[in-house]
Amino acid sequence: MLSHLGNVFVLSAPSGTGKSTLAKQLVKEIPDLDFSVSFTTRRPRPGEVHGRDYFFVDDAEFDRMVAQDGFVEWVRVYDRRYGTGKAWIREQLATGRDVLLDIESKGARRVHEVIPDAVMVFLLPPSSRELAARLRGRGDESAEQVKIRLEYARHELAQWESYDYLVINDTVDQAYRRLESIIIATRCRRERMGAAAKNILDSF
Amino acid sequence: MLSHLGNVFVLSAPSGTGKSTLAKQLVKEIPDLDFSVSFTTRRPRPGEVHGRDYFFVDDAEFDRMVAQDGFVEWVRVYDRRYGTGKAWIREQLATGRDVLLDIESKGARRVHEVIPDAVMVFLLPPSSRELAARLRGRGDESAEQVKIRLEYARHELAQWESYDYLVINDTVDQAYRRLESIIIATRCRRERMGAAAKNILDSF
Repeated sequence: MLSHLGNVFVLSAPSGTGKSTLAKQLVKEIPDLDFSVSFTTRRPRPGEVHGRDYFFVDDAEFDRMVAQDGFVEWVRVYDRRYGTGKAWIREQLATGRDVLLDIESKGARRVHEVIPDAVMVFLLPPSSRELAARLRGRGDESAEQVKIRLEYARHELAQWESYDYLVINDTVDQAYRRLESIIIATRCRRERMGAAAKNILDSF
Repeated sequence: MLSHLGNVFVLSAPSGTGKSTLAKQLVKEIPDLDFSVSFTTRRPRPGEVHGRDYFFVDDAEFDRMVAQDGFVEWVRVYDRRYGTGKAWIREQLATGRDVLLDIESKGARRVHEVIPDAVMVFLLPPSSRELAARLRGRGDESAEQVKIRLEYARHELAQWESYDYLVINDTVDQAYRRLESIIIATRCRRERMGAAAKNILDSF
């Protein structure tokens, strides 16, 4: 188990739900919240940057990290692998900063095992029809790929009971406000604010 | 125990911390959140309105309600009594609307016993010095009354471990944003969103 001072937020969602856009906005606008950059063996999409969006590695490098126990969790999705590196997360939490992990449900459950007080957040599309429209609109998916992604989305959505918070992405603004609220509220929890409360009490 | 669909938020704070101002702003700006108006035997302050700020009743009427088990909780503070009426809360929760209770720590603990999943929020002044300045600035308190209130505030603050969330009222804007976030986040909790999640899953 990783011991920590900062909070860990896990954000999962079916592909196409808008998770990455929202996650980027959260770390940009909320102070002391950093994005955990995952390792992946999939190839970069246009515009994706190594070290910002993902650490893009080949299969041999990924195998080496697995062998050296370098991942909090890693999963295979289709023919690709994704993993959350241990070293960076550990350092981040020790400094008291919050970490946002953007991972799918299988990886999320593994993080929850390693970090039991991680705050588990699940982002949902408003409906199957809306998700299909968004996947087609993305333009880099064939009809067959959309079908596979919808089937996988159904499988992901069935995991909703593993999460603490469920946020429907009906509009980006509403979804953002809800996610931001979950982070601000978590920072107000008694476990986090106890030292501050004691200081105030001592001033009386 | 009161069974309910809506959420109950309990907001407690030492006198002078700014609780009433924030509570009023919350119910004004957040949809589907209503303020529980307490009964009290104390006399109205200038500007306070019966039925909006409190139900101002005399001792005989308060006694009658106690005898008829008409309160979720009631407490004596100095020589005054304050109580939360049962009937209105029960109706409110049954319609799925959220209720905000503005009560001191003894009453809050009693509400927590009757409604175990009430969300307990404690508002703290930034320091003893700041609270004293605010109490003096209110103008309706003698030096002796300020001293009594500070002593009582210390007693209230010692109860911080009974609360789920601790919010420091350093600035009204910051405190408001934190309180609003706690309410929005609570509405995103799995227990509250389960039916919506099932509907979305069924659309796949």
